[in-house]
Amino acid sequence: MTLKKIAIYGKGGIGKSTTVSNIAAAYDNSTFVIGCDPKADTTRTLVGKRIPTILDTMRDNPGCSKEDIVYDGYNNTICTESGGPEPGVGCAGRGVIVAMQLLDKLGAFDSDPDLVIYDVLGDVVCGGFSVPLREDYADEVYIVTSGEYMSLYAANNIAKGIQKLEGKLGGIICNCRNVENEEEVVSAFADKIGSKVIGIIPRSKLVQDSEYKATTVIESFPESQQAEIYHKLIDDIMMNDDIRTPHPMDIDEFEEFFYSYV
Amino acid sequence: MTLKKIAIYGKGGIGKSTTVSNIAAAYDNSTFVIGCDPKADTTRTLVGKRIPTILDTMRDNPGCSKEDIVYDGYNNTICTESGGPEPGVGCAGRGVIVAMQLLDKLGAFDSDPDLVIYDVLGDVVCGGFSVPLREDYADEVYIVTSGEYMSLYAANNIAKGIQKLEGKLGGIICNCRNVENEEEVVSAFADKIGSKVIGIIPRSKLVQDSEYKATTVIESFPESQQAEIYHKLIDDIMMNDDIRTPHPMDIDEFEEFFYSYV
Ligand SMILES: Nc1ncnc2c1ncn2[C@@H]1O[C@H](COP(=O)(O)OP(=O)(O)O)[C@@H](O)[C@H]1O
Ligand SMILES: Nc1ncnc2c1ncn2[C@@H]1O[C@H](COP(=O)(O)OP(=O)(O)O)[C@@H](O)[C@H]1O
Ligand code: SF4
Ligand code: SF4
Ligand SMILES: [Mg+2]
Ligand SMILES: [Mg+2]
Repeated sequence: MTLKKIAIYGKGGIGKSTTVSNIAAAYDNSTFVIGCDPKADTTRTLVGKRIPTILDTMRDNPGCSKEDIVYDGYNNTICTESGGPEPGVGCAGRGVIVAMQLLDKLGAFDSDPDLVIYDVLGDVVCGGFSVPLREDYADEVYIVTSGEYMSLYAANNIAKGIQKLEGKLGGIICNCRNVENEEEVVSAFADKIGSKVIGIIPRSKLVQDSEYKATTVIESFPESQQAEIYHKLIDDIMMNDDIRTPHPMDIDEFEEFFYSYV
Repeated sequence: MTLKKIAIYGKGGIGKSTTVSNIAAAYDNSTFVIGCDPKADTTRTLVGKRIPTILDTMRDNPGCSKEDIVYDGYNNTICTESGGPEPGVGCAGRGVIVAMQLLDKLGAFDSDPDLVIYDVLGDVVCGGFSVPLREDYADEVYIVTSGEYMSLYAANNIAKGIQKLEGKLGGIICNCRNVENEEEVVSAFADKIGSKVIGIIPRSKLVQDSEYKATTVIESFPESQQAEIYHKLIDDIMMNDDIRTPHPMDIDEFEEFFYSYV
């Protein structure tokens, strides 16, 4: 039986895929990793290469099978990528909808993985990108942020989306960019919106070094302190039962909050 | 008669609004500034405060008039903000469509401003956000980027959208983040996609200092070197007649290109 279905949201470039792939690699039971960011590189470090996306595969071969879109990855993971629309025309969010429907139809969830993780872009919190939440694919959300303005701005917007949909927030993951007062501002932010910081991930060169070889830190540097941090994060997520609907700030409150820390 | 209708695209947080408001303030003839980013803060430094957005105004007052959504700003500018959807439900891109239709209907373009500038988010290049281009509201695009991966990744995606719509790219604006080889990589990027760098904007503390007072650099530090740079940029844009459909890279080309510079 699936123990948890979680969605990781955050601004583009903030470290969602790095976090998702490393916690999936760190979790020994079966994990289904679903990349829902048009960038489509969540699963690259698990599979060892970029995999074809669901949208691209469907375009070329409308009658595709599960094997065409779901790939085995490192340490008991199975991996898929929704992919994005053609720039300038399609709807990125609808891509997520179409991808989810196909996964359902092809029975991709039938193996009952212990953990399901969605990696979702949070720059534009529109109807499309909220599908994993809205359609009950995911039960709890974690937001990745640094202490930077745009990243917290996006986190606050994501919290607005979660509140609107009466979804549940499990916590905030601070992926450090080493800006001033970073842990302090992220922790105060979590507090403000009625949540908590569930993990603090330091910046580490091992992330790039492993990424370069299309692997996770877990695979390439299993004994490192960074690996230990991802292990602890997934343990804490699996044990977390304090999940709540957040109460985000309005834009004026947010700006006042942020500028009181810089 | 309107001389130019331009759209400035770029990743969230890259410096679009700063650039747009400063070049609008630097241009002495009449300018219509249209913010199309859900963040809705393009015009704040021109008007001196945040203005109500078109989407919010329409929600509260469907029969609103031009005066409710178009505001006078610094140095012969008029300003409006499309605004965004409710997080989690609406479509951010459709917001742009609805806003444009209302501006048209209320005759907001009737005064024939010499210059029209659209400030558009480029993280998600979907149907919605490409409206200014697709519906011929704008004739030429400028992309703001730094030398960072995500910012160039977004720039390349925006170029894909422009190519798809057979739009025209006027050039790349490098808004420096002071990363390694920045001018070199941005200029090589411009070259690769068949465009050119039209301006290089240094990082400057004057930007934050003026922003803090809800003004542009042009207004608060008119004699500064930074102000001069924005003056030169809008002059170069107004004189630019070398605009072309770009030929963006595919994702593998892009990664190979980027990693050859870092
Ligand atoms: N903790 C970290 N330490 C060092 N680099 C990181 C860390 N987290 C992410 N990065 C780097 O930041 C970049 C963006 O991360 P990524 O996971 O792709 O972001 P996202 O999925 O949110 O777009 C990647 O190149 C990655 O190597
Ligand atoms: N040239 C610059 N020098 C210093 N700070 C800048 C510069 N350009 C932008 N910024 C800062 O970066 C932040 C984001 O800029 P903004 O124009 O709001 O980005 P966007 O409109 O693309 O989201 C702002 O706080 C602004 O002060
Ligand atoms: S619902 Fe979201 S993803 Fe879809 S077109 Fe609208 S803004 Fe884009
Ligand atoms: S829903 Fe979002 S991604 Fe889709 S067209 Fe609209 S703005 Fe674009
Ligand atoms: Mg990612
Ligand atoms: Mg902006």
